[in-house]
Amino acid sequence: MTLPTRPYKGTRDFYPEAMAFRRWMFGTLEKTVCRFGFEEYDGPILESFDLYAAKTGEEIVKNQLYWMEDRGGRKLAIRPEMTPTMARMVAAKIQELPRPIRWYSIPNLWRYERPQRGRLREHWQLNADILDGDVQFADLEILQLAFSVMEAFGGGEFIEIRINHRAMVDEYFEKVIGVTTEVAHGLIKLIDLKDKMEAESFNEKLSALGLTESQAQSVIQFFELEYNEISEKISGSGKLEMDRLFENLKGSQLEHAVVYDPSILRGMDYYTGLVFEIYDKSPENRRALFGGGRYDNLLGLFGKTQLSGIGFGMGDVGLENFLLTHDLIPLVRNRKDVYVSMTDERYEKLCIQVTEDLRAKGLSVVTPLSVGKLKIQLKQANQHDAHFLVILGEEEFENNCASVKNLDTGDQFQCSIGEIFNRINTDLN
Amino acid sequence: MTLPTRPYKGTRDFYPEAMAFRRWMFGTLEKTVCRFGFEEYDGPILESFDLYAAKTGEEIVKNQLYWMEDRGGRKLAIRPEMTPTMARMVAAKIQELPRPIRWYSIPNLWRYERPQRGRLREHWQLNADILDGDVQFADLEILQLAFSVMEAFGGGEFIEIRINHRAMVDEYFEKVIGVTTEVAHGLIKLIDLKDKMEAESFNEKLSALGLTESQAQSVIQFFELEYNEISEKISGSGKLEMDRLFENLKGSQLEHAVVYDPSILRGMDYYTGLVFEIYDKSPENRRALFGGGRYDNLLGLFGKTQLSGIGFGMGDVGLENFLLTHDLIPLVRNRKDVYVSMTDERYEKLCIQVTEDLRAKGLSVVTPLSVGKLKIQLKQANQHDAHFLVILGEEEFENNCASVKNLDTGDQFQCSIGEIFNRINTDLN
Repeated sequence: MTLPTRPYKGTRDFYPEAMAFRRWMFGTLEKTVCRFGFEEYDGPILESFDLYAAKTGEEIVKNQLYWMEDRGGRKLAIRPEMTPTMARMVAAKIQELPRPIRWYSIPNLWRYERPQRGRLREHWQLNADILDGDVQFADLEILQLAFSVMEAFGGGEFIEIRINHRAMVDEYFEKVIGVTTEVAHGLIKLIDLKDKMEAESFNEKLSALGLTESQAQSVIQFFELEYNEISEKISGSGKLEMDRLFENLKGSQLEHAVVYDPSILRGMDYYTGLVFEIYDKSPENRRALFGGGRYDNLLGLFGKTQLSGIGFGMGDVGLENFLLTHDLIPLVRNRKDVYVSMTDERYEKLCIQVTEDLRAKGLSVVTPLSVGKLKIQLKQANQHDAHFLVILGEEEFENNCASVKNLDTGDQFQCSIGEIFNRINTDLN
Repeated sequence: MTLPTRPYKGTRDFYPEAMAFRRWMFGTLEKTVCRFGFEEYDGPILESFDLYAAKTGEEIVKNQLYWMEDRGGRKLAIRPEMTPTMARMVAAKIQELPRPIRWYSIPNLWRYERPQRGRLREHWQLNADILDGDVQFADLEILQLAFSVMEAFGGGEFIEIRINHRAMVDEYFEKVIGVTTEVAHGLIKLIDLKDKMEAESFNEKLSALGLTESQAQSVIQFFELEYNEISEKISGSGKLEMDRLFENLKGSQLEHAVVYDPSILRGMDYYTGLVFEIYDKSPENRRALFGGGRYDNLLGLFGKTQLSGIGFGMGDVGLENFLLTHDLIPLVRNRKDVYVSMTDERYEKLCIQVTEDLRAKGLSVVTPLSVGKLKIQLKQANQHDAHFLVILGEEEFENNCASVKNLDTGDQFQCSIGEIFNRINTDLN
């Protein structure tokens, strides 16, 4: 039997070049969240199935979860999202963790989806969450972080942050349109799916929810309203939080990047306050890059006191597409410091010693691992993207010295064996 | 229903402190392999079941693999080891990859095992492989790398590298003891399990293999022999490679760390040349930390030309235990540069601005995210391990300045708001 060399459908192999790019991308994310004082956590990629059955969207659990039973009959799932793991970990040590909690992770997540552009079966996702702290400060900070992440890649000018508030929407629906929270929630889910269904089917489902025609009209009109048109008719905590957030945004770096959008609702059941989505403003790419929101009831599942939190999850695939669209990807290279050539059996031992010495002193060194022509090894040195080529040939061997060629400039010099490190190291710094 | 907060049995949660330690440990590994010119790769954690059915040890596939069928009926497994993924990826691009190939990865691997000290159901494992290149140079380099990794942690003096050669063992068994390669291989596997079975059962299985009593005796005596007692009776490629390796080790940093041990055989089917295991020499911990070996037939599964390689896999759990045993773990801290306090609603906006400014300039900044007493916030600043505390209180607000306290030394000074960054940044560098 011959095995196929392609990876499982909808997944990716990271060859060194792609891996160097991933390292650069994750490194940029990490540097940014660290400026915000976030600390990294991680948990196992396999979790109890029940962890997702409880709170993750029904669609995901029913149709998209990778799951299995272990040999002890325990039902396990490969994590489709990180928030349940984070909530479980926080619940376990809720008394000990220093507050406020600012946590991040870049987990690998899995969903059984039909692979298409921007949607794979596995991806990596920056998860950043703030737990505890006052809503007004934490909400502002998470938006600042989302913006700063994009800005760190040079993409700040291309994005817009669309925000809404679940409690505000609930209040408007209940008090102004006169539908219960329950129906309102059914409505929100329905509207979330609106683009995926026929107009007729959408209207049928609307009446099935028990809405009058005028209520249904109001609901549809709601999504065209400006912030003031909504907020002037309500007075609850959602409106107050939003007013305060807009106030605190004034003078901030991201003031003009944030816009109110009543259609931002986020499908997940667990959002209770601010919800937001980051959009690429460019016409060819007008879609949500990532989003998040505030949740108040994650820890209850574990029998713990509630702790309010806000966070977002940003996938690597969408981010990479965004960076490509806006030409924001620098040349990321896997450079090596030195290539030590080996052109004759007589110098084998010397080549091994020089290599061992340069590595011990901290340089990254590649070697051909076989005796060969200098011309071929020079080509190899360039393939491996080395800064310097060390030549230990007949002339050098007889004079107990080495020739060193700078592969970027083409300059070449001779020095004693003992001097190679210092000469190269000076040029590298 | 209340969900448990503990992770799945045999797995670990990494809270920020544990995560910082993991980062430090992986960072040390990465720096070392990079000195050797290794490049990082990664592949999906789910692979086709067949990839393991072919070459991974039977015991693992039958009893330890986590596997499932996806919704399309494809049989998938969570990777129990990285080598099959690496082989698949190399086979896919065998014509394009620059030679010699030096690749590393630190994947998360899963096996269904009874959890016990040093054996979890998931672990992380440094995988380093060299493909192509002459055996004599590649074998030496992989041993140098294994040693350097331990040395990078300050553990070089505590370890010993025990080596053997599969072809040498095969030849000795065939030519000197007179058993076929097939029987010899059965014998090797049996001997690998010797410690786990009763003496009687072991002897029964020996005769079942068709060995005479004298042959069985010779086999048992074999494992007590010195290198010269074996090598003087054979002449094949295994012996020649080993002779050359010992020759090249002379004068090398790890010369005295390498010892010949005929009992090192490694269970895996795919080793064909040099095999080695790194042992902790200390009496309380006398066991293999990790090991590896040379393989010649990995790519054939994919219908590709063979490419000889050598590599090892080093688990994080064993490494951590080793570092603990020898007290080689430094204090790894999650330090933040600054904690900006917020003691009154009147200074909210100022605190937000100062925080935004310091973060934009590159400092890592934590804040309380709520108004509170300075005494409590000072405590929080220490919990978050901040270098500096910025105080924006009544006096500071009125004088349009800030007080800055160095939390390491206790020194405190005042400066203008605009000077905070420079003052702190100078002290940090």
